[in-house]
Amino acid sequence: MAKKKVLVLGGGFGGVFAAKSLEKLGRGEVDVELVNNNNYFVFQPLLPEVASSSINSADAVVPLRQLLSNVQVRQAQVMGIDFAKKTVVVMQGARLTPVELKYDELVLALGTAVDLSRIPGMSDHALTMKDLTDAHMLRTHVIGCLETADVTAEPEVKQQLLSFVVVGAGFSGVETVAEVRELIRRALPYYHNIAPDEVRMHLIEYAKRILPTFPADLAEYATTQLRSQGIEVLTGVGTKSATSTGVDLTDGRKINSSTIVATIGNGPHPLVQMLGLDLHWARIKTDRFMRVPGREHVWALGDAALIPLIDNPQEDPADYATQTAQFAVREGDQLAANIMATLNGKEMKPFAYTSRGSLASLGMSKAVADVYGFKLSGMFAWLLWRGFYLSFLPGFAAKFRVGVNWLLNSVMPPNIVQLRMPPPATRYIHFWKGDKVFEPGMLIDGFYTVINGAFKLTIDNPETSEHFEKVFGAGEHFGERVLVKSELRTGLVEALEDGLLLFIAQKDFTRFATAFPFLDQYFKDYIEKTFGGPGKAFAPGSTNQQKPKLAKTS
Amino acid sequence: MAKKKVLVLGGGFGGVFAAKSLEKLGRGEVDVELVNNNNYFVFQPLLPEVASSSINSADAVVPLRQLLSNVQVRQAQVMGIDFAKKTVVVMQGARLTPVELKYDELVLALGTAVDLSRIPGMSDHALTMKDLTDAHMLRTHVIGCLETADVTAEPEVKQQLLSFVVVGAGFSGVETVAEVRELIRRALPYYHNIAPDEVRMHLIEYAKRILPTFPADLAEYATTQLRSQGIEVLTGVGTKSATSTGVDLTDGRKINSSTIVATIGNGPHPLVQMLGLDLHWARIKTDRFMRVPGREHVWALGDAALIPLIDNPQEDPADYATQTAQFAVREGDQLAANIMATLNGKEMKPFAYTSRGSLASLGMSKAVADVYGFKLSGMFAWLLWRGFYLSFLPGFAAKFRVGVNWLLNSVMPPNIVQLRMPPPATRYIHFWKGDKVFEPGMLIDGFYTVINGAFKLTIDNPETSEHFEKVFGAGEHFGERVLVKSELRTGLVEALEDGLLLFIAQKDFTRFATAFPFLDQYFKDYIEKTFGGPGKAFAPGSTNQQKPKLAKTS
Repeated sequence: MAKKKVLVLGGGFGGVFAAKSLEKLGRGEVDVELVNNNNYFVFQPLLPEVASSSINSADAVVPLRQLLSNVQVRQAQVMGIDFAKKTVVVMQGARLTPVELKYDELVLALGTAVDLSRIPGMSDHALTMKDLTDAHMLRTHVIGCLETADVTAEPEVKQQLLSFVVVGAGFSGVETVAEVRELIRRALPYYHNIAPDEVRMHLIEYAKRILPTFPADLAEYATTQLRSQGIEVLTGVGTKSATSTGVDLTDGRKINSSTIVATIGNGPHPLVQMLGLDLHWARIKTDRFMRVPGREHVWALGDAALIPLIDNPQEDPADYATQTAQFAVREGDQLAANIMATLNGKEMKPFAYTSRGSLASLGMSKAVADVYGFKLSGMFAWLLWRGFYLSFLPGFAAKFRVGVNWLLNSVMPPNIVQLRMPPPATRYIHFWKGDKVFEPGMLIDGFYTVINGAFKLTIDNPETSEHFEKVFGAGEHFGERVLVKSELRTGLVEALEDGLLLFIAQKDFTRFATAFPFLDQYFKDYIEKTFGGPGKAFAPGSTNQQKPKLAKTS
Repeated sequence: MAKKKVLVLGGGFGGVFAAKSLEKLGRGEVDVELVNNNNYFVFQPLLPEVASSSINSADAVVPLRQLLSNVQVRQAQVMGIDFAKKTVVVMQGARLTPVELKYDELVLALGTAVDLSRIPGMSDHALTMKDLTDAHMLRTHVIGCLETADVTAEPEVKQQLLSFVVVGAGFSGVETVAEVRELIRRALPYYHNIAPDEVRMHLIEYAKRILPTFPADLAEYATTQLRSQGIEVLTGVGTKSATSTGVDLTDGRKINSSTIVATIGNGPHPLVQMLGLDLHWARIKTDRFMRVPGREHVWALGDAALIPLIDNPQEDPADYATQTAQFAVREGDQLAANIMATLNGKEMKPFAYTSRGSLASLGMSKAVADVYGFKLSGMFAWLLWRGFYLSFLPGFAAKFRVGVNWLLNSVMPPNIVQLRMPPPATRYIHFWKGDKVFEPGMLIDGFYTVINGAFKLTIDNPETSEHFEKVFGAGEHFGERVLVKSELRTGLVEALEDGLLLFIAQKDFTRFATAFPFLDQYFKDYIEKTFGGPGKAFAPGSTNQQKPKLAKTS
């Protein structure tokens, strides 16, 4: 028989373990290819440790090519699937020509995506903890807050920079808040102007208690442990909205913070959403063999799939496989066996597995564990946690690197290097009524367009006592000054109601506007009409404007 | 006497060692503050090792706060200096309000910047090797080329992806080409579809030989060594222009390549350029005590400064301190002593130092060294090179981490994890006459404005045999289709002459155009005028267009 081509989409626990098993069980019979957006497998349970510098960014991940040496690994983005033609269309790297891949059997292991759309401002202002980049960005962001807090002379700025909010207190939320706490605690001795009691950390959970999947007494222990580290644990309260200055809670409180981490809001992968498959709880329905009903030769597993554990599942999550690495690994093995059984005309087996338990790290060498029904907490649980993940980490090289990192980290000063990424060129910024967008004396950094809400500009010229006011609504804009190179803001812009702005960074806006003669002319006309021409008071670039405080030379 | 405030601008070798010495010599007498854009010191000699994954990104740098424990470290960007008022204006982190810092003594240690402006296209298309981000980006880029080359079915694309060009064969260029070679050599076993002889590497040097500061026989040895690794060493030839597809050489040759690394073009730091100081060879002239003539209480050192070694220096580089770490470190010590002498009314000493020699790594456990006049090459020089840098690396933690990394790296598989950064929203792209900007069937990824040159769009509709042509010149644009969400290009755009485009990524362009009703209307009118309306053939978004090949669902 000719070799069959099995295409696995997604390189998380489900996809990787399915590909590994398939390659082993089907050697000589199948060609296995795995398509993933990144060239590495992310060991998600260790992401909070990346956020805390406890391990290096590159050590929480394993190159897929080294993990799956006999599988063809393709770093590509899946654009579409044609189930009838049995093809998948992908984009490879920076190449813009789509490539079509044929398959005999298709495995969907696409995981889930973060969906924060239900909370206004959250997707634009919260950091997430799904991928390596997220963990890296959180770490960089936290160190940046400490750097600025250490040198600022403005008390309210300092207070906001030293306030950290984590939304959602499942595994990921609890471990993230604990690890960020640990990073800050170890870093503070190097920030001479920050007192430990100036740092405030908040963990916000909508449910009545944290760690809902754990036994109540372990969750209780974890709460006490987090509180003893100075983390404010707020339960039974949700977030109503988020801006760049903080979160608004459902109980009416507002927490000022420059750092919001959202570990909530699991939604379907964008591709899963458009495949026209039968979804339930945003997951692809499968039969007990992990086949996708109504589609020939299509299988699904991992977080993306809803796999029944019994024959007539009801509306009870317990009737289905849970979305954890533990399950995904076993699903991968069984799915591989079922594909091989199908190809060889043998009988498939339904997926069955019972969780061995759960573990959550709490920082400060403490953890909680519920293993085979035994409840553990404290240092012993923490050692178990480390040992468990080390043994679970695929590949010797990764185990060794993480182990060495853990050892080094326990005897070395914390790594507070801030490897910054360039900020995005365009971003949406939400404001609450009364918030200031900018004030006189601030550096001009970009251009604003109003998406919704009302924003009031006020300019007072101290030299001539002239006064200028204008309210901007949806579709209007301010900050054209960027184009005429004046350096500091002379006006104040405030939100008259809750609103949303699109910000475009100076460099990109200027490049665009100057390359495009039509836009350039528009802004010239606009300045003439609105401010009475470039030579007039208040006009951007006019000579009457408040003298910039930025002395370039003596 | 009241404590004097010494402000050091710049955290490279010069700034860090000056601050360290000042803190030691002046304890109780001076307050030392160091301002740097990043919160870490970059050990530049190890950047090529970061590019090759031989050490982790974070291990070629040391947090300034850990290096300078009794110095106030301020992560900030210097915006201006007022020598008369003795103040420096800085921006701190993401805070947009400028902050004024007073000083009694000011030390300029701002280093140099890369200036590639003399070679058209080079600054827009070449990677550089100045900072940690550069090294990280080079590594990521090289791995990305291997990933795509492994899965592409287009031979000319594969050839371009597997061709690497390093421009400039000083230390940095030689070590970079050797380390990238090493990374690729070690990574290739994991890329099953790339044969070793498909990889081509080029080192291009305008001078008659590589490593111009080394003795000729060592340079000869290095050339042989690099050639034996399959690196094409081209000397006596310069680069005329660069595009995203390669470089044009002064001898008429053209090298197709997706990777150009420029280690040439040292220019003054932008701030140094606008300070109104006396510059020579783009460096700040100082006296033999490192004082800046004509400015009271201002000192300069390191690569930014031109420090005479004799009393009446001529137009001979040998009469001045060289721009190396070795010199900068000694300059820092002497400058600190001179500042303290001034404050205490004692006599200053002129700077004097003779180089101990030079070392350059060649990859494959080989190096060349010229130490105290002794010439060494091969494995022994390489061990010396490693030992020397390890001993030179400031701080025990950094030494230990780099040492452990080197050990791990020699026994472990290479780290081929590709930690990608988001591509910039706007970028300039240069084209040679005849180059294609895009072709039918490519994914639409953004919008183009013509800066200069002439670009011809051709659309052929296979269904109706209709034909459309238009030539775009400066200020004109194409790619509006982005706004109407069609997925694949239907037209071909070619450069009719050498030209430059500004590219704006789909996401950012769409956000901007849709937020701005005025632009939206402009594009509607434009499409009507140019293509005869959205319902017509060739009009972006029209239903007659070539059928997209991207099947979303069955």
